Amino acid sequence: MTRVAGKALVVCVVAALLCGCGGGEADREPASQRPTPDAAALDREVRVLVAYASVTGSTAAMAEAVADGVRRVEGASVVVREFDAVTADDLADADAIALGSPTYFAGMPATVKVVLDRWGRDPKIDLTDKIAGAFSTGGGRAGGKESVLTALHAYALSRRMIVAGPLYERGSGAWGELGATARIEPGDEGPDAAELESATRLGERLAGLVARRVP
Amino acid sequence: MTRVAGKALVVCVVAALLCGCGGGEADREPASQRPTPDAAALDREVRVLVAYASVTGSTAAMAEAVADGVRRVEGASVVVREFDAVTADDLADADAIALGSPTYFAGMPATVKVVLDRWGRDPKIDLTDKIAGAFSTGGGRAGGKESVLTALHAYALSRRMIVAGPLYERGSGAWGELGATARIEPGDEGPDAAELESATRLGERLAGLVARRVP
Amino acid sequence: MTRVAGKALVVCVVAALLCGCGGGEADREPASQRPTPDAAALDREVRVLVAYASVTGSTAAMAEAVADGVRRVEGASVVVREFDAVTADDLADADAIALGSPTYFAGMPATVKVVLDRWGRDPKIDLTDKIAGAFSTGGGRAGGKESVLTALHAYALSRRMIVAGPLYERGSGAWGELGATARIEPGDEGPDAAELESATRLGERLAGLVARRVP
Amino acid sequence: MTRVAGKALVVCVVAALLCGCGGGEADREPASQRPTPDAAALDREVRVLVAYASVTGSTAAMAEAVADGVRRVEGASVVVREFDAVTADDLADADAIALGSPTYFAGMPATVKVVLDRWGRDPKIDLTDKIAGAFSTGGGRAGGKESVLTALHAYALSRRMIVAGPLYERGSGAWGELGATARIEPGDEGPDAAELESATRLGERLAGLVARRVP
Repeated sequence: MTRVAGKALVVCVVAALLCGCGGGEADREPASQRPTPDAAALDREVRVLVAYASVTGSTAAMAEAVADGVRRVEGASVVVREFDAVTADDLADADAIALGSPTYFAGMPATVKVVLDRWGRDPKIDLTDKIAGAFSTGGGRAGGKESVLTALHAYALSRRMIVAGPLYERGSGAWGELGATARIEPGDEGPDAAELESATRLGERLAGLVARRVP
Repeated sequence: MTRVAGKALVVCVVAALLCGCGGGEADREPASQRPTPDAAALDREVRVLVAYASVTGSTAAMAEAVADGVRRVEGASVVVREFDAVTADDLADADAIALGSPTYFAGMPATVKVVLDRWGRDPKIDLTDKIAGAFSTGGGRAGGKESVLTALHAYALSRRMIVAGPLYERGSGAWGELGATARIEPGDEGPDAAELESATRLGERLAGLVARRVP
Repeated sequence: MTRVAGKALVVCVVAALLCGCGGGEADREPASQRPTPDAAALDREVRVLVAYASVTGSTAAMAEAVADGVRRVEGASVVVREFDAVTADDLADADAIALGSPTYFAGMPATVKVVLDRWGRDPKIDLTDKIAGAFSTGGGRAGGKESVLTALHAYALSRRMIVAGPLYERGSGAWGELGATARIEPGDEGPDAAELESATRLGERLAGLVARRVP
Repeated sequence: MTRVAGKALVVCVVAALLCGCGGGEADREPASQRPTPDAAALDREVRVLVAYASVTGSTAAMAEAVADGVRRVEGASVVVREFDAVTADDLADADAIALGSPTYFAGMPATVKVVLDRWGRDPKIDLTDKIAGAFSTGGGRAGGKESVLTALHAYALSRRMIVAGPLYERGSGAWGELGATARIEPGDEGPDAAELESATRLGERLAGLVARRVP
């Protein structure tokens, strides 16, 4: 509510200035000193956290590509962290969180869930209303990369987050996908250009949603 | 962005009028009696569409419970429609859409997917950025009710929507769930009170998110 | 099959030696011409049904590749049918059923579920204990092809079937996948060789399981 | 391997018959009175492993109920083990494995995946062709209990297993479910009778499939 209020207030002030609203009681109290529930919201960037685990570097490469997408959005900043390094402050500061995981036996590795479970047990880490997106890497065509996305989405919903995926357009068509994935086979040097682009689109999507939501 | 820009313009005009751009009356009105910035920002109601299919009436009962939850949010209005009756305008007008389905053989019935596919093929029906939630009914404890939720979420993401679920609190705990479900066994008269409450929470969640998002 | 067959041959020889099989008519018949133990156990052929829907021909190509895999198994026969053409007898006769579907908006198209729902409503069509496998086609990297596999698996379990996926080996490694998928983008002429091979492995897996299960 | 051993026995008998081992008696016995291949094949018990993790005791109670179901099948034996206590021999000996997990934040806890990942990395633990079933416990109606089943199924398929769920009948109807689940809310003393019965049906299903599959 406060963010919306803030936007309205700012707009109101701008409108007042524009139309030369120049007299009366209310004017004497400087706008800047009035409680502005949301002015606070406007004074900072959109912040996206990219949290990932990577063994061979492929998921790390996807994480960097997600970050590139965030940076495409004006006023958005991004923090990229391996899961183990994510702090409570990283989480608290984030408007959106992209979760990235390799695929181990058609699911996320235990090392990822260890961290996600820890976040869930710490009552100070409230993720309510933050926007979540997911990306994964793994071998094989139907080896569970998408199951990892779905599992990360389920986690996000259980933590009161909101889930979004990357957007695509081609010709007159427009669609979305569940997340971003990269198929990595032995000998591959990492995600290919199209896979990195899907990750970038995920980052752009998350930051864009916040940017439009934050007043 | 354009929607926000447009909305900002409306707010600007409203603000200009309120602040008496050009005259004194408005200024003398005490701040506390002025429309709150929030109300000002809402150039229109939050609108939630509840689209569902029901054979025995159970999913219909859940749909009505979702609608009750929407109505808990100030300034939110709700339209409840069987899938077959949903119009392109219903979809275009909705800020959020709750999708409700029975469970047939662990998935949504063909009759539901017929409509969802039709929405996807009609290029005029753009659901981008609308918030989606899901509810389902079905027999059995592990008969696929949750799989229906997941399938509806996947649909929503493919249509460029954003996914949210109902929120719960108990004591110091707070969590979310994937959606709302009701287990209906032969002889049951419909969803029980707790199941209806989960549907209501879903409706409240969707409307609440929109209310806070709409500038 | 070959491993079991080979082992059976060894056992056969050992048994013959142990029991002092030293003379008589049977001995003169070369082992290779005798009914193999496996074949003896099979009072009839292993029968696999490949049921699919295809719009552009890609899923049809995958269906044919599944059939190729079935034919790799000695004593296995295969029937390939579009969903609409599957009869109750096709289903009753099948020991295993491969279900193939395009991906529409991250799920199976309504046209596929129409048929699956019909099978479920017809009490004469009992699929209990038949082995199920799934394959899908679709655009995008995370557009729901795997979600279609999972949905088909859920259907199969709801119909009392048993679920299996294709097997792979590389070096000392051996793993399985959820099913077979093909990513089809505009301009593609259909599944590539590796995708067809995954479908073939699915067919081989299903027929192989039946061949070893049938007494 | 044990199945192969069973098959070898059958083959041995068949081979003996074919080569006329022992002379006349056996030959004169009508085929219908001879030991069926199936009976002959059951040279040993059907063995089911129930592997689970439990914090409050609810999943342990479900595990015991699964074991009860195994014992309903003649000639079936069951070993119940907490995940941490499962040995490589337990896995090697099992014809079927029931995997049971609590639900943590809509997925299996890290402590469960730690063990499942370990099984996957140890090349000596080959689960090919073993039958898998899943059960889970957790709070809430749509809190992820079914997602845990689906994740366990995906794991099983990635490990080359075959997936089955419990069977139900009512009147003229017969269906299957994805697995067995128990909803546990604060104050509950554990799974209720119907939930335990679903676990029992899962155990009966797994053992029954093996009993009929072993040649």
